[in-house]
Amino acid sequence: MSLRVGILGYGNLGRGVEIALEKAPDMELVAVFTRRDPGSLSIRTEGVPVVAADKAAEWQDKIDVMILCGGSATDLPVQTPEYAKMFNVVDSFDTHARIPEHFANVDASAGQSGHVAVISCGWDPGMFSLARVYGSAILPDGNDYTFWGKGVSQGHSDAIRRIKGVKNAKQYTIPVESALEAVRSGINPELTTRQKHTRECFVVLEEGADAAAVEKEIKEMPNYFADYDTTVHFISEEELIRDHSGMAHGGFVFRTGKTGVNNEHNHVIEYSLKLDSNPEFTTSVLVAIARAACRLSAEGAKGCKTILDIPPAYLSDKSGEELRAHML
Amino acid sequence: MSLRVGILGYGNLGRGVEIALEKAPDMELVAVFTRRDPGSLSIRTEGVPVVAADKAAEWQDKIDVMILCGGSATDLPVQTPEYAKMFNVVDSFDTHARIPEHFANVDASAGQSGHVAVISCGWDPGMFSLARVYGSAILPDGNDYTFWGKGVSQGHSDAIRRIKGVKNAKQYTIPVESALEAVRSGINPELTTRQKHTRECFVVLEEGADAAAVEKEIKEMPNYFADYDTTVHFISEEELIRDHSGMAHGGFVFRTGKTGVNNEHNHVIEYSLKLDSNPEFTTSVLVAIARAACRLSAEGAKGCKTILDIPPAYLSDKSGEELRAHML
Repeated sequence: MSLRVGILGYGNLGRGVEIALEKAPDMELVAVFTRRDPGSLSIRTEGVPVVAADKAAEWQDKIDVMILCGGSATDLPVQTPEYAKMFNVVDSFDTHARIPEHFANVDASAGQSGHVAVISCGWDPGMFSLARVYGSAILPDGNDYTFWGKGVSQGHSDAIRRIKGVKNAKQYTIPVESALEAVRSGINPELTTRQKHTRECFVVLEEGADAAAVEKEIKEMPNYFADYDTTVHFISEEELIRDHSGMAHGGFVFRTGKTGVNNEHNHVIEYSLKLDSNPEFTTSVLVAIARAACRLSAEGAKGCKTILDIPPAYLSDKSGEELRAHML
Repeated sequence: MSLRVGILGYGNLGRGVEIALEKAPDMELVAVFTRRDPGSLSIRTEGVPVVAADKAAEWQDKIDVMILCGGSATDLPVQTPEYAKMFNVVDSFDTHARIPEHFANVDASAGQSGHVAVISCGWDPGMFSLARVYGSAILPDGNDYTFWGKGVSQGHSDAIRRIKGVKNAKQYTIPVESALEAVRSGINPELTTRQKHTRECFVVLEEGADAAAVEKEIKEMPNYFADYDTTVHFISEEELIRDHSGMAHGGFVFRTGKTGVNNEHNHVIEYSLKLDSNPEFTTSVLVAIARAACRLSAEGAKGCKTILDIPPAYLSDKSGEELRAHML
């Protein structure tokens, strides 16, 4: 029997989960839950009901796992503990600094209800975390390097939009090619923030705004831009929509380390992603983890988990025999 | 208390495990077991006894995990089931086609004795298997590509050495750069065996051997060379020892796949290794997995496992809290 999946929230992530489920032969979308008026929402999959989020409790026996597609800033800190009372859940909580707090809240809720809740699934946190943990476990005498991009940073774009005189903006984080090459060479470079990434901003001004003042404010903004080489381009709203609406992203995780009687051998592990659609890749991870959450729950597991706690085979729809025969 | 580790076999792998254990703060080498005369063996670590392999049974209460450092051809098919009767064990069995059979034998033995046995740990099988399984679980609509090299293939070197007139030989497997680039571009190319790798051979002839005949026999050898573009160099034994004694290796695993309403988004996942020492990287994996085997056993697990069955966090000496706070 197929695993019965619910989606909470129907933005970029919710739609991405819906599409990803079409490629999961062992999983089936049974309902989409929304805080909007369900009648106002038209979803892609025919015959699947759209349900008001406050009716979710009625679906407890009809759903094996609920994929939570809200945002990390305000939605998930509330939703994940709340829905873990009723369902096995999976989320993509990605505020790194608040993961321990989110974990504790979700663990208390899921532990009490007896459900499995897997938090922070995506690519960073997520696949990049795996690369970091495997890499450092295998090469304990070494260095980690994570590079992001080229891709739009939502947080940095938002920071620019809050500047007076800015109508709209997109900010690209770009890894510095020479830094990537230095890491790949195995020399274990010490890299400053400025040496790792550059920031490129495309800004639409309000009528009559002072371009020079806006550029200065961007480049001097602490934490966000001051420590980086930042380029600012002023463009029209039409150009922004035409040229900068894509959701491509990606990045690189390296672990470099030494072995040998005299530490004479260098090793370089490189994991990289080149993604045409950041949200669709994230939701592809969420769906694989949702499968794993069901398996964990069926085994009697409960409480909060992360991708670091899950046997890799549980993400796959193939059996252990198949994996050993064809993929090991 | 430190995990107490035994090593069986003291060749390249055994010595690599010994060095790797020095970098594992939570693990301690307690004995090296050998089928040779223990008195003839001098090991690196002071104060650690060298013990005859047939006395291993006396060490059952003194060892938490035994790392088996024999070869896949004849040693491990016998040793892993045998030692799994007495110990938690880890091996690097790498004959892909015989993994299901080896798994079944080891599972029967370890299941009965109540121990954990983790087989086929290294980089392929091992880390490359992880990349393949994670990649295909996340991007089910896609393609796998594995490239090996540049590095010496022991099997192909042995095949050359069996030719009449050959005194010694080393064979390098080399990935074709244009094939790597085609895969990275996301076009999902269909690649023939010849398009993926080339083979470069360095051969020392016996006195009076017919070079042209040897070269022809190498290049036409079915399975090993006939399907590849192969280059043969004849060199002196001194040159072979001077220039071709290194044990560098590496390779690439790609998963490329599509998502989107109309499959309009391409994604490229790339995992690569560049290793100065093939055996020392393999043993670094074995040691991390040995740690995980102890944790699994402490939880009550038993039977045969592979790296695909083990939560990633179990390979690390860091706690779940530390991993979530700093690496997730």
